[in-house]
Parts: sequence; structure tokens; C-alpha cells
Amino acid sequence: MLDAVLKKIDAGMPASLERLFELLRIDSISTDPVFKHSVRKAAEWLARELTGLGFAAGLRETPGHPVVVAHDQNRPPQKPHVLFYGHYDVQPVDPLSLWESPPFAPHVKTMPDGTKRILARGAADDKGQLMTFIEACRAWKEAGGGLPVAVTICLEGEEESGSANLAPFLKANAKELAADVALVCDTGMWDRDTPAITLMLRGLVGEEVTVTAASRDLHSGLFGGAARNPIHVLADILAGLHDPDGRVTLPGFYDGVAELPAEVRRQWDGLGFDAAEFLGDVGLSIPAGEKGRSVLEQIWARPTAEVNGITGGYTGAGFKTVIAAKASAKVSFRLVGEQDPAKVSAAFRAYVRSRIPADCKVEFVSHGGNPAIRLPLTGPYLASARKALRDEWGKEAALIGGGGSIPVVGEFKKILGMDSLMIGFGQDDDRIHSPNEKYEMSSFHRGIRSWARVLEALAG
Amino acid sequence: MLDAVLKKIDAGMPASLERLFELLRIDSISTDPVFKHSVRKAAEWLARELTGLGFAAGLRETPGHPVVVAHDQNRPPQKPHVLFYGHYDVQPVDPLSLWESPPFAPHVKTMPDGTKRILARGAADDKGQLMTFIEACRAWKEAGGGLPVAVTICLEGEEESGSANLAPFLKANAKELAADVALVCDTGMWDRDTPAITLMLRGLVGEEVTVTAASRDLHSGLFGGAARNPIHVLADILAGLHDPDGRVTLPGFYDGVAELPAEVRRQWDGLGFDAAEFLGDVGLSIPAGEKGRSVLEQIWARPTAEVNGITGGYTGAGFKTVIAAKASAKVSFRLVGEQDPAKVSAAFRAYVRSRIPADCKVEFVSHGGNPAIRLPLTGPYLASARKALRDEWGKEAALIGGGGSIPVVGEFKKILGMDSLMIGFGQDDDRIHSPNEKYEMSSFHRGIRSWARVLEALAG
Repeated sequence: MLDAVLKKIDAGMPASLERLFELLRIDSISTDPVFKHSVRKAAEWLARELTGLGFAAGLRETPGHPVVVAHDQNRPPQKPHVLFYGHYDVQPVDPLSLWESPPFAPHVKTMPDGTKRILARGAADDKGQLMTFIEACRAWKEAGGGLPVAVTICLEGEEESGSANLAPFLKANAKELAADVALVCDTGMWDRDTPAITLMLRGLVGEEVTVTAASRDLHSGLFGGAARNPIHVLADILAGLHDPDGRVTLPGFYDGVAELPAEVRRQWDGLGFDAAEFLGDVGLSIPAGEKGRSVLEQIWARPTAEVNGITGGYTGAGFKTVIAAKASAKVSFRLVGEQDPAKVSAAFRAYVRSRIPADCKVEFVSHGGNPAIRLPLTGPYLASARKALRDEWGKEAALIGGGGSIPVVGEFKKILGMDSLMIGFGQDDDRIHSPNEKYEMSSFHRGIRSWARVLEALAG
Repeated sequence: MLDAVLKKIDAGMPASLERLFELLRIDSISTDPVFKHSVRKAAEWLARELTGLGFAAGLRETPGHPVVVAHDQNRPPQKPHVLFYGHYDVQPVDPLSLWESPPFAPHVKTMPDGTKRILARGAADDKGQLMTFIEACRAWKEAGGGLPVAVTICLEGEEESGSANLAPFLKANAKELAADVALVCDTGMWDRDTPAITLMLRGLVGEEVTVTAASRDLHSGLFGGAARNPIHVLADILAGLHDPDGRVTLPGFYDGVAELPAEVRRQWDGLGFDAAEFLGDVGLSIPAGEKGRSVLEQIWARPTAEVNGITGGYTGAGFKTVIAAKASAKVSFRLVGEQDPAKVSAAFRAYVRSRIPADCKVEFVSHGGNPAIRLPLTGPYLASARKALRDEWGKEAALIGGGGSIPVVGEFKKILGMDSLMIGFGQDDDRIHSPNEKYEMSSFHRGIRSWARVLEALAG
């Protein structure tokens, strides 16, 4: 049966690509109200496609953009039930002048080495990825007699604008959306030949701190040497966040940070990750994080404190001898393991307050927080997915970590009590969120084949 | 003779005030090309007035605004020759909405305590001040039979826009402008009852430093923990500029910094300076500078390092989890004594370079430098000026320092080989450079009387 499905996929590639192009032509930028109708148009296109495939599909309204929910109407009995997640909205396209071709005019470009890539905004993030799953479902429906497992599809339209309405939507529809496991397709492969399952995602705490000293900006000639400079106070605070070994100094910061399981460490050591190349690609050569940790550990499995922005005093052209009244910084913490976002935020604020002179004042703004995601290393679904990917790619799937966060995975766990399998086919150089976004044709084609295999494997 | 001159001054006050008003009505804002003709109009008005007083006066062209130069044509033989300096240009007036009356419609306001003040842009800085000297000359001419010393007057039109053409002008006309001592009227009194002679002005070195790490902005999720954050590098550098006692850590920074002469320290201790009030006025209470130094020492006689501006990463609304490619800061040093601006700049750059990781890069922009001014505590001119001020005000003139720099004093020394006597009648609350600038009527009236006495005293 699987053979027929895979043959169907191969033969149907031109039509699959044309359907993806239809979706890519819709400029569904969720963050800009100007594109509200386009976002809806993309949702309607998806609901129509899924209805055509035999799903009970429709738009579900939220205070923002709609969620597309589709239930397969022919559920095989006694088989697992999966919830597939993707998002149909895309990032803005500016600066438009840097695009080599219009972002919403998708086309295929053949590279000098013969590989092909699909060029368009959203090609990789996340329209190309979500279409790998839908096209796999189509092949099973058309050549396999129906889906081998029960499938519900949930496609979000606000992932690129903060997902403000997703958690309430999941809560309000928890019973309807409950499943055995979630399949989330918004991550990447290890490299062009090696599939990957993402098992760890770091959490995030965002804090903004503003230090105020004098009641107004002061002339540094008249007051310099006597008046407190809030930029100095802030620089001291930020410099003190790390010790000389690159560890974060906040008391209790490493509570809940465990060492890597031996199996994962072995896996990672075997990945052949080239730290020099990783850093070299962005003009660096010296790992800047915790001493005694590999670069992969630093970016996937260790918590961090980073200053994402700082401003104070005069920053225009030329010079102004001012002592600023205030200075501020945006600071984020990447979390791993069981680190508690609320405790990290509280430890940061206590640390800052302990360094504020008595005649200065400090204010904080929270920019949210979510804990790290750590998916179980055992269990039948992961084993099935690993086998399916090995069958398709001819090599073991890398079990990787991810430095950024995918909040929906946390919400699925918290609200629906369900683990996720994060399987995606993006490449590091897909330029998501940037001009000239692309998706490898091989990612699209073999992504569809991979999902076809995963669906069969999950059926057991 | 002096009595007749002083009587003339007192009787002539309404006319003196009307002449000052004529000058204040001219909107001679030097930094804005829109006002170019107004600046010239002010210069022409002054040249006409001085010509009327028997000076050989005229406008001297520069690449910018003209300099007014006037030589008294009746030089008394065997008497010292003084060069008076003031500036006839003014600061911009924005925000205009904060002015209680139009900035170029001068008028006198009587305060609840009966004191009067002259309200207008430039009333204190520096038209009111320079007119104290011209009106004193007028009184000597009209009631004293001529000036008691040889007088040359040099009035600049670009002080508020950087004085770019002053040094070249002084160099080109060094012979013509040579004198025994310069009289500079652009400083303040100690308080409303106590005249002051400014003997020390701190110098200034301005440096801009930019640290570049990666070749582009990075996503902190993907790279955080491995990639160098230039804001961290910069914060470390800036935090390391001071030790816990508030001293600047640059090697050799304090070379050439002498302790206060005992006489000056005694004088300052006797001034009754209220450090709590000085800081309290701007919302502070804890002196932030070097431990073990009085606030007056900190702002007048000690060198400083201040970060005047810092910027890096995302500084807009909300949050962006970016690791910036670069971060930069503007840093200035106030210099005292014999500190060498070039050495301070070099020490700063060497210190910064020593803290830059090998895979990062640093760039510097110089924003200029000038050494501190320290005028001799001995000599006949200072003694004469002190006596004249004591006679007028009934108390000893405070020999004070100033935190900011008045570059022309350095240029007079360097180019013309001449010391300056900085005597002025401004008050701390004159709001120079701000809306509602004012000059005390007592400053204007007794300033004229003070100069009349100083001119006589200098004649010996």
C-alpha cells in the first residue's frame, strides 16, 4: 500500500507544486491589518482544499485571524489519532528592494548544482511545510484507500504575529482537538541529507529594565563627577550578569538545568557538527558562551542571558556632553530543562534592584515568558517516526535541540496534555523572515514522502 | 574720576537697557542658516555702536559668520592693553511653546521680591554680558575722559555653533589681536551677592567607540550562548572604566592631575556650597564621583569619564530576540591640570582594544579634545580684578572652577600667548540654552559698574 502511495506522490509532484504555488500567491501577512483579507483568503483556500479531500473543514473565528480546523471523516478504527499543526500566515516582506523576484510570485529556480528551490515568502515558513502534510494525506486518500490513522488538522493564522489567540482557542476547543500526539511541522532538517526530530526547545523570558537617575538630562561639564550616570549603573548591572566563565550569575539561575542524557550526548557527538563553520558563517570564530560546553550544547541545551537592546543618552550624529536621566535595556533569558520563567524573572529583578543606588529608581516591563520544551526520548510514536524517516532518507534521524521557542508545543502539552513530534524539512539557509525566502524542492518532495511514511508507521 | 563714571552708569541705566533691548530683538541664531542675515545684522549693530563710541570697528569676514573687531582709537600711553571677548550669537529657541513670552521681544519682569530680570533669548548668554563691558566703556568715554587702558574688542558670531572659524581667525590676525590680557565675559557669579573669577576650566576629550561582533544581526534563539554579543563586550568595557571608589581605571589617567592649591581649597571651603541642594535640585542625593572628594572638587577639579550615549540592538517598542552585530557608545573625559588629551584618548583606545575578543573588531571616532585651563593664581591683573570686584560687591570674589570648557580661553593662550580673566555675572538659574532665558537686572547694572572698576584697576 505504501509503495502505491509513494508512487502517487512522485507522479503527482507537478500538481502538488501548483497547489503550493496557489497558496504562496496569497499575501497572508498576519501582522499588518492591511492584509487582513488576504489572511482570510489563505484560510478559505485551505479549508476548501481539505474539504475536497474529505475532511470536515472550516474556518473558526477568533478575535484575530481564523484558525482552520479539519477532521478526517473516515477515521480508521483502533488507530492512533494525530493532530497536525502548521501556520498559513507569513512574515512581512520588507525591505522589498532586497528581493530578487516578487515575494508573492512563486517560482522554481534551478541552481548550478542542479538542485531546485521554490522561491516565495512563506515557501519554507510555513506554507511549504504544512503542504507536505496535506499532500501526503492526499496521496493516502487517492492511492491508499484512506488515511492510516485518524487525523485532525489545525492551521493557525497568527503565528508570525504572536499567536495571541491560539491558547484561548485551544482551551475553548480542548475536547474537540484532543488527540494522542501532535505533529508539528515548523522545524528543520539536520542537513540536506539528514532528517531531524526536534526534542528540545529552549524557553524564553523577556525583561525590559529602565534605570532613572537625575530628574532631567544634565550637562556633563556642570554635573560630571558628582551626578550619577544611569548608563554606568546599567553597564555595571549588565556586565555582572556573567562570570568570567560565561555562566549567568543570578542566584538560583541553574536550578532545574540538568546535564544532557547520555544517549542524546552520544547522538549529538555523532552529528559531525562543525562549530567553526557555524560561527564562521557569521564572521565569528570563538565560542562566546559557557566554558567547557560544546557549541551545540551552548545553543540547544544551556540557558543564556542576552542583552537584546540597549539605549541611553545621546545616540545621534556627532557628540553631546549629556549625562542622561535614564538608560534602558532589553534582556532575554533562554531557558532549558525545568527552569521556571517566573523564578528567573524574579531573580533578575532582585539582582538589578540590589545594584541600584538609593537615589536612583528602576522600572521593569515584562515581555513574557515560557518554559523550555523537553519531549520524552521513549515511547511508540517517536520510535515510529524515527523508523519512517530512516526508511525515507536512508539514515538515522538526528534527535536535535532547538535554540528558539515554538510556543504552540508548550500549549499543546499544557492545554491538551499532549506531546508533540516536531518534524520539519527546512534548511538553515532558507532565509525565513528575510528577503528571498526559499524551500528546497527536495524538502517539499521528500517531506511529502516522509509524512506518508510517518502516517503509516504511526498506524503500527 | 571713577565716581563720575559710576554715577554716569547709574543715571544712564534706562538708555543702557534700551540699547541692550535693541540687540536682543535681533534673532541672531548662528546654528540655523535661516537666520544668517539676522546674525549679520547683530554684528552690524555692534560695529555701529562701537564706531559711535570712538572705536575703529568693523566686520571681519570668515567662512561662517563675521567677527566684530574694534580698537579704541585713543590708547592711553604706558597702560596695559586688554582684549575683551564676548559672543553676539544665541542658541535656538525651540521648543517655542515653552516660552512665557516671545524670545526676541525683550522685557523686564519684576519678581515678587522686588528684583527685576531681563527676559529674552541671549539676555544672559551672551548679549547681556558683553553689553556690560560696552556700557562700561561708554561711561568711561562720556564721563571719564576716555578709557583708562588700551582696549580691543573681539565679538564672535559662532560660539553657539562650534566656533569652527575662530581659531583660524585668531591665527590669521594674531599680531593685530595681541594684548596683555584677555577679558572674557561668558561665566557666572558665585551667587547673587558674590562675584566670581573663574580660574579653572576642565578640558574635554570625546570618543566614540563601536564594537562589531558577527557579520550580521543574529537570532538569539539560534545563536544565543555561542555567538558573541557586542553589547556584553561594550558593557564590560564601560563598567571597567571606574573602580569601586569612582576613580577612572585607565593607566596613566591621573598623570598631571595635581591636588588643589591650599589657597584655592581654603577659598572653596569658605564658599558655603550646599552639595545636598546642588544634587537635590536634579533629584539626586548621593555624590557619584570619586570617594573622599567634595562635590565642588568632583565637578571643578577632578577629571571624569562619562558615557554620554549608548546604543545597540533593538531599542524600539516591544521586544526582538536579536543578538546585534554591533554596539556603540559615546564617551567623554573631563580633564584637569596638565592632563594631555592625546594621551587620554590613546589610553582609552588601548584599554578598549585590550578587552576586545580576537574575533571582534573595534572602531573609534574622535570628537576632539582640549586640555584644561588653569589660570595663574598670582600676577597683577588678577589682583587688580579682585580688588575691583571687592570694591563693587563689598565682598571677596570667589575664585572658582568651572566644569565645562570655554575653548576660546585655550585658543587665546595657545595662539596669542595670553592669559584670560574670566569674569561674568550670570546666575545658575539663568536658563541659558533653555526657554525663558533671563539675566538679572542687578547682573546687568552692577556688571557694568564692575567692569568700570576693573578697567580702572587694571590701569594700575
